[in-house]
Amino acid sequence: MKESIISRIQPDLRRIEEEIELLLTTSVPLISVVGRYIMGSGGKRLRPLLLVLSARLCGYQGSHDASLAVVFEFIHAASLLHDDVVDHAKFRRNRPAANTVWGNQAVVLVGDFLYSKAIHLTVGYNSLRMLEVLSEATTRMSEGEVLQLVHADNIEISEEEYIEVITRKTAVLISAACQIGALFGGNDVQREKALKTYGHNLGIAFQLVDDTLDYTGDVKELGKPVGNDIQEGKATLPLICALRNGKPGDRARLREVFSSEQLRKEDFAEIKELVTRSGGLDYTLRLASRHIQTAKQALDIFPPHPTRDLLSDIADYVICRRM
Amino acid sequence: MKESIISRIQPDLRRIEEEIELLLTTSVPLISVVGRYIMGSGGKRLRPLLLVLSARLCGYQGSHDASLAVVFEFIHAASLLHDDVVDHAKFRRNRPAANTVWGNQAVVLVGDFLYSKAIHLTVGYNSLRMLEVLSEATTRMSEGEVLQLVHADNIEISEEEYIEVITRKTAVLISAACQIGALFGGNDVQREKALKTYGHNLGIAFQLVDDTLDYTGDVKELGKPVGNDIQEGKATLPLICALRNGKPGDRARLREVFSSEQLRKEDFAEIKELVTRSGGLDYTLRLASRHIQTAKQALDIFPPHPTRDLLSDIADYVICRRM
Repeated sequence: MKESIISRIQPDLRRIEEEIELLLTTSVPLISVVGRYIMGSGGKRLRPLLLVLSARLCGYQGSHDASLAVVFEFIHAASLLHDDVVDHAKFRRNRPAANTVWGNQAVVLVGDFLYSKAIHLTVGYNSLRMLEVLSEATTRMSEGEVLQLVHADNIEISEEEYIEVITRKTAVLISAACQIGALFGGNDVQREKALKTYGHNLGIAFQLVDDTLDYTGDVKELGKPVGNDIQEGKATLPLICALRNGKPGDRARLREVFSSEQLRKEDFAEIKELVTRSGGLDYTLRLASRHIQTAKQALDIFPPHPTRDLLSDIADYVICRRM
Repeated sequence: MKESIISRIQPDLRRIEEEIELLLTTSVPLISVVGRYIMGSGGKRLRPLLLVLSARLCGYQGSHDASLAVVFEFIHAASLLHDDVVDHAKFRRNRPAANTVWGNQAVVLVGDFLYSKAIHLTVGYNSLRMLEVLSEATTRMSEGEVLQLVHADNIEISEEEYIEVITRKTAVLISAACQIGALFGGNDVQREKALKTYGHNLGIAFQLVDDTLDYTGDVKELGKPVGNDIQEGKATLPLICALRNGKPGDRARLREVFSSEQLRKEDFAEIKELVTRSGGLDYTLRLASRHIQTAKQALDIFPPHPTRDLLSDIADYVICRRM
């Protein structure tokens, strides 16, 4: 992350890390061990951080926000654990995926624990409205995960269907973190709506950039092999766009490689070339930029404030990030 | 189930079935399909029924209890789906287990959906207290599932540790269904406590009987092979007891068969004989009977009422059930 952002978020990140450690302590040691493994593997803590900053921008000045922030890291970690089972993932963030270390069983059950614990922590904040937002978000998220499964190996997915999947899979939780931060920080409908919009657009942009990094990223920075999505049968926007704009011969070749069992290095290089040439990567990044603009504009209702600037800088960072 | 009980619960069961069907309708058809599969496979609807009856015993007379009741069937179904992944189950209730039909992926994700949807439905009842009870129950449940995994293949588990596992795995949710029924039906602390105690003890007895049926049950009635627990490396109370009371030679033999990779028919017959001879089955059923007595006594604070009698009869049925 950019140095200028890091220095400003450091104290909050430290509080979040301490709270994660505290809340992972349970009477069942295996839960703490697997929990620490999935959450200790270099996550950005984007969701808890956005909650803390949203609350602050809405006027909150205390430190009772930490557990509520961790709720979002727990739910995110639970979904990563369950994703790894679903994707048969071998690696995540440069380390063996949790399921390859602990087995599918532990990974499914610890995911369930983290999810339950997150709800239980939120209940402690005595706000039905927060619970309403959170439980709607997790329900839509899980529908999105099933939707993605339904579209597995479907290269003919439309841009609209793809946007629906990433909205549910990624944007909904990020948006809920911002919205619940706003609810916790104050109780102003306009501000809540603005931060919800910020989070929603940031989330979509985040996933769009993620999907381009699967083509252009660096294995080391990314912590997983490039070409992972194609290998897993996920057609993301760069590919969807290439298929829409490519010449008939190129399209046939894209379909052929996409549906092959094993993706060879040279196949991926060829796909990457076709996707780049057809403008698929540019198109995806332009769309991400537009969402970042919308996210930043949503912050306009707030008066000038260092936290507003920070949220705006985080939005810019999402576009230029390399991991 | 006994005819005399069935006739009294029929109208409620019908309402519950209709509500399940209604609530399983989502914008993602695969969710409805897998949900109907796991919930249509001959479950007893014990948890929703207990909620409805608990609410009625506490004075509730309307029909707005149906969704709240279904919450407990959804959570139960989610845990069955995730269990099937964990246990690599091939059969459940005489049909192929959901994971063998739809794959681990769909089963994990639809489980997540059912769980999220259950929380979301409960939020709709506007009671933080209900959410507190429910989220604590699901957190303890998931801890129990991990605990059971930790004890997998451990024949040296103590009776105390085993009771802790079944309390969390089974009793906690049944108890929460009764307690939340009481909260919904009225708001009397004594009654809430009584129904919580009833559910807790009924739940433990239910699981104890289940664990004896794994030795003595009929494949057809049970819907899964007998000896399933040993095959899956679960040492339940009948076996724990046999290991405690058996002669040294018998104990060595129990350990040997328990740790063997594949359980042959004749091995199981031998184990069953040892477990019976050592009094393991009797001991387990006696303990279950004591819990049923405690469950029924908890109902004493209620004045005579057909619903009180029905709850008492359901408790008796738990002991003599064959499936």
